Amino acid sequence: MKTNIIKNILFISALAFLFSCGQAGDRGGNGALSSNIAEKVYVAPGERDEQYAFLSGGYSGNLTVYGLPSGRLFKEIPVFSQFPTSGYGYSEETKPMLNTSFGFIPWDDLHHPDISQTNGELDGRWIFANGNNTPRIARISLTTFETEEIIEVPNSAGNHSSSFITENTEYVVAGTRFSVPVPQKDMPISEYKANFKGALTFIAVDQEHGHMDIKFQLLMPGFNYDLSHPGRGKSHGWFFFSTYNTEEANSLLEVNASQNDKDFIAAINWKKIEEYVNNGGGTKMPAKFAHNVYDESTHTATSTMKNEVLTVNPVDVPGAIYFLPTPKSPHGCDVDPNGEYIIGSGKLSANITVHSFDKMLAAIDAEKFDGDAYGIPILNYDDVLAGSVQSGGLGPLHTEFDGKGNAYTTFFISSEVVKWKLGTWEVVDRKPTYYSVGHLMIPGGNSRKPHGKYLVAMNKITKDRYLPTGPEMEHSAQIYDISGEKMELLYDFPTHGEPHYAAGCDAELLVNNSKKIYRIDENNHPYAIKSPAEARVERDGKEVHIYMSTIRSHFTPDNIEGIKVGDKVYFHITNHEQDFDVPHGFSMIGQRTSEILVMPGQTKTSLWEPERVGVWPFYCTDFCSALHQEMQGYIRVSPANSNIELSYTLDGDDI
Amino acid sequence: MKTNIIKNILFISALAFLFSCGQAGDRGGNGALSSNIAEKVYVAPGERDEQYAFLSGGYSGNLTVYGLPSGRLFKEIPVFSQFPTSGYGYSEETKPMLNTSFGFIPWDDLHHPDISQTNGELDGRWIFANGNNTPRIARISLTTFETEEIIEVPNSAGNHSSSFITENTEYVVAGTRFSVPVPQKDMPISEYKANFKGALTFIAVDQEHGHMDIKFQLLMPGFNYDLSHPGRGKSHGWFFFSTYNTEEANSLLEVNASQNDKDFIAAINWKKIEEYVNNGGGTKMPAKFAHNVYDESTHTATSTMKNEVLTVNPVDVPGAIYFLPTPKSPHGCDVDPNGEYIIGSGKLSANITVHSFDKMLAAIDAEKFDGDAYGIPILNYDDVLAGSVQSGGLGPLHTEFDGKGNAYTTFFISSEVVKWKLGTWEVVDRKPTYYSVGHLMIPGGNSRKPHGKYLVAMNKITKDRYLPTGPEMEHSAQIYDISGEKMELLYDFPTHGEPHYAAGCDAELLVNNSKKIYRIDENNHPYAIKSPAEARVERDGKEVHIYMSTIRSHFTPDNIEGIKVGDKVYFHITNHEQDFDVPHGFSMIGQRTSEILVMPGQTKTSLWEPERVGVWPFYCTDFCSALHQEMQGYIRVSPANSNIELSYTLDGDDI
Repeated sequence: MKTNIIKNILFISALAFLFSCGQAGDRGGNGALSSNIAEKVYVAPGERDEQYAFLSGGYSGNLTVYGLPSGRLFKEIPVFSQFPTSGYGYSEETKPMLNTSFGFIPWDDLHHPDISQTNGELDGRWIFANGNNTPRIARISLTTFETEEIIEVPNSAGNHSSSFITENTEYVVAGTRFSVPVPQKDMPISEYKANFKGALTFIAVDQEHGHMDIKFQLLMPGFNYDLSHPGRGKSHGWFFFSTYNTEEANSLLEVNASQNDKDFIAAINWKKIEEYVNNGGGTKMPAKFAHNVYDESTHTATSTMKNEVLTVNPVDVPGAIYFLPTPKSPHGCDVDPNGEYIIGSGKLSANITVHSFDKMLAAIDAEKFDGDAYGIPILNYDDVLAGSVQSGGLGPLHTEFDGKGNAYTTFFISSEVVKWKLGTWEVVDRKPTYYSVGHLMIPGGNSRKPHGKYLVAMNKITKDRYLPTGPEMEHSAQIYDISGEKMELLYDFPTHGEPHYAAGCDAELLVNNSKKIYRIDENNHPYAIKSPAEARVERDGKEVHIYMSTIRSHFTPDNIEGIKVGDKVYFHITNHEQDFDVPHGFSMIGQRTSEILVMPGQTKTSLWEPERVGVWPFYCTDFCSALHQEMQGYIRVSPANSNIELSYTLDGDDI
Repeated sequence: MKTNIIKNILFISALAFLFSCGQAGDRGGNGALSSNIAEKVYVAPGERDEQYAFLSGGYSGNLTVYGLPSGRLFKEIPVFSQFPTSGYGYSEETKPMLNTSFGFIPWDDLHHPDISQTNGELDGRWIFANGNNTPRIARISLTTFETEEIIEVPNSAGNHSSSFITENTEYVVAGTRFSVPVPQKDMPISEYKANFKGALTFIAVDQEHGHMDIKFQLLMPGFNYDLSHPGRGKSHGWFFFSTYNTEEANSLLEVNASQNDKDFIAAINWKKIEEYVNNGGGTKMPAKFAHNVYDESTHTATSTMKNEVLTVNPVDVPGAIYFLPTPKSPHGCDVDPNGEYIIGSGKLSANITVHSFDKMLAAIDAEKFDGDAYGIPILNYDDVLAGSVQSGGLGPLHTEFDGKGNAYTTFFISSEVVKWKLGTWEVVDRKPTYYSVGHLMIPGGNSRKPHGKYLVAMNKITKDRYLPTGPEMEHSAQIYDISGEKMELLYDFPTHGEPHYAAGCDAELLVNNSKKIYRIDENNHPYAIKSPAEARVERDGKEVHIYMSTIRSHFTPDNIEGIKVGDKVYFHITNHEQDFDVPHGFSMIGQRTSEILVMPGQTKTSLWEPERVGVWPFYCTDFCSALHQEMQGYIRVSPANSNIELSYTLDGDDI
């Protein structure tokens, strides 16, 4: 067994070495870069980028917003991780967003963002993203650029083949990477095979508000479900998932899950299953999971615990699910803009396998099967094969499209992007990446209408691309101009966390809908005050509620007495500014939480539990005016048994 | 009183409006930017930036590392905030770094980084930074780019006039922004005046390891101490602090702290005070504060609580402290490369006040005082004035230097950088900034030898500079070429959090010392294993210690049984890679903490307290090889009363 591992490692290492040697020589070519290239990525002061790129942060748990072609980071949107910068996951209003059936979890691993679509085209309403570790799907508003909803996915583990959406955003789909006992139970790990299940979850999206609701879970055989993409156009109504570990190994997977020459792409006719469940099909199963919704009007999240999920056994819906044999542990599973080609990238292969949707339908019609796996029909590889790209590279992972008949595939081991023609399968161009590229993204690439001007390669290994920063460094992306026949490498830019996939769009899709402020007259936060005149402090037993206003450059109230050790002090800060880009922040010395950053028209709450007597200052944490340094106040804390009454100062007058 | 506020606000707003109208017209000029400028900031793939810029993250709590001239973000170094990305503040080893006398605090407000110096020149050993909210100073290694030490500053509040270092890194100095009762006590806020104190803290730095130790605290009058800088060259041995609110107001500061025409710059002869305390001077005061040190050999932080600090009453050291009257609520307090000029920027002024160190010494020698404040002699304004820069701008904040006799001052209200000549005080050039610039930074600008090629303006207001991202957006920096007579605006780049100041240096100072890996043979972590062969699981009552190895692409062990509900499971992950840039990550489904990211040769510990029976997966969170997706494992959790024995799988063999 150990010999096998060593062989495997040596093989991969040797290949990587050979390919990287080849690249090292290429780097010298950078000297030939013309000033023309500099101009191509340069966005002059006062001008704007052409496109948005939403890169997943991977282990940062968040989503980052970049501009193309400049590669500049415009915002980090907190999604699955606590974010001290704004107080997300620390403020009372946002803590519920990180609630799960396991309790509060301060982190997740955000992998695959996908922008909402209408008729197969990006519509710029929302962006969805998956939490890979403790299975969750998030929805982020593309008007506020804030996370509005997170739903936990029960019976799932390593929520990796997620979150991809159907062409009218009917569903956001989540597939488990790791199969587990469903429902969970105490059983020997060695009994994995034939006993563990892989849940593929279809989450319905309310078209008005975007709210998510689990429609059904398909309990598939205990394979690893790696990536997925929806059908589109003629294949709309189907969804495709790559699998690996069809060996159902539970240990030493790097050897034991690479035994079968072919694993599967699972083709799921979700419309058929939807019809089945709409007619009363499926089994309700007890399953605890959290559903967290942030309300923009109350500026507050609420977490609800759900108790039941509708499950579907694949064999109960004949004709809805088929397996397409796909060589060499397929990773990426991508569908071309016309919906005809399903591309499976066998990560241990040199070639790219392309399945034909039409051929698949024909084979299904002809009932030509090559046996079954746990009752699910397996189609013949040759019957469904559209073609195979003889790439000349090694380790294909992911494919995107330019809408002009070309596909672009990343090769991890040979560190390159290969451009090839759909239909003829000929390789048109190849360009090295530095180093070990994972995902790539062409804005709109996952839709019927890609905006194929730029391609972003997201590289896993950085090494010497930038000035050194010690053992730990950011990953690195590269941007290529793909408007011509040959790709042209334009620029390297570091990325935050580890991007796994990205979604992008033309700037014009979003710029006019981006919200600038929250209107104070629409603020329905239960502790909001409509003007500084309503500022006050109220005691309710050990709880003290401070209704505080911020406006340049003053806190109202700014001096408070009568707070006692052991109190729970809630600062409800309403920012009464109504100008764009005038946030105020709030922090209290010794407070065992983060600051909060409050946008114009918004209310946020910060909890302080004073433990020591004294006079303690607070201040505004965001430099807001020439008199920002004067924006401060004091709170007097007296002993728990003190009889000092509550009092405070409003605009210089004591109350 | 209210009329005063409104007047004040109207005045400032009207001025800001007038100045910003002027700028709006300037933006059209961007069309004239030549391709030459694009080339000036373009760093081609495979090439490297010329300079490092370490920008404070402000309310992010962290330090960000950028390259100049590209403006690319290379790393966010977690300092005062929990950082889910790497597990800082979540892993067992790093939680003690965020300990304080108030308990664990997950956040702070990082303001002013300063690079260590030898003979007044940057030496590239460490960078220091202050936590503004719960007073702390951090030291970050410039070989590992990780935070190595944090010391809390007692008797301080709003640690703003910090962290600046003397020219041989003898001291890192921290001054309180808010005065407070010292020691803290329950007293009316209205009795602030004459009773509150402002602590200026001198922290000695051990020259071998960089370890910090509070040498003494000067208990100054109850003003607000805003910014500070060390003397250098002939003024080495002195330290200068700007003050505001010498009115000692405690409410409505935006009005009440702007009454005096002049506040002070405090000149502190720290060598004299050092001699005084070395000879037994000063008073030991009980004061609880945390001192947290991260040991690179054990990869572990320890937090120690200290109980005493040495305080000095200014009047006890005659001749050590003087006040220099400085107009209009001075904010920035900067010292030129020769150590002669002390520049006080009155933030409500149009002009910049420059004091002369020589004149100050002469006035002190002549004992020419204009009274005293709480026993501290006040020098005559005219006696110490070197000159006043008639800037034509409004709201000067900060000044840096190019080493060629020029100074550059930011103007917040008129949104511009003004270049002027030291000695003649003539304005040489001015360029608009977009918008409302706070700090600026010239690499090496705070030393005897600035590297005056680029200037970075850190702007407080962003508005429309980038593609919109909703109500909340990043702040914005601008880079100017200052190698010629006139400044040339090159580029805008967004910044992470809110930069308050930055430190920069030429790349060559750091590139050769940057560590690539941690050596496994130097790993002294108590739960490290030297090779995968030592991997094991041990139970100690309810505690389970998993000595786990990661190496591409395998966890050893990868299957574990015999874990029970209610156990405290410690995953001690040692990354046995010894190649540059091969981290592995670890996360466990449902774990109520963040992932950990483990660098080659390092050990980190993640705690899991399983609450449910079942078979639960874990996986590597950093895409590490072609077989990364296979890098996973399972843990079986049995009921608390189960009698299943501990067992685990090493390389496919059950133990």
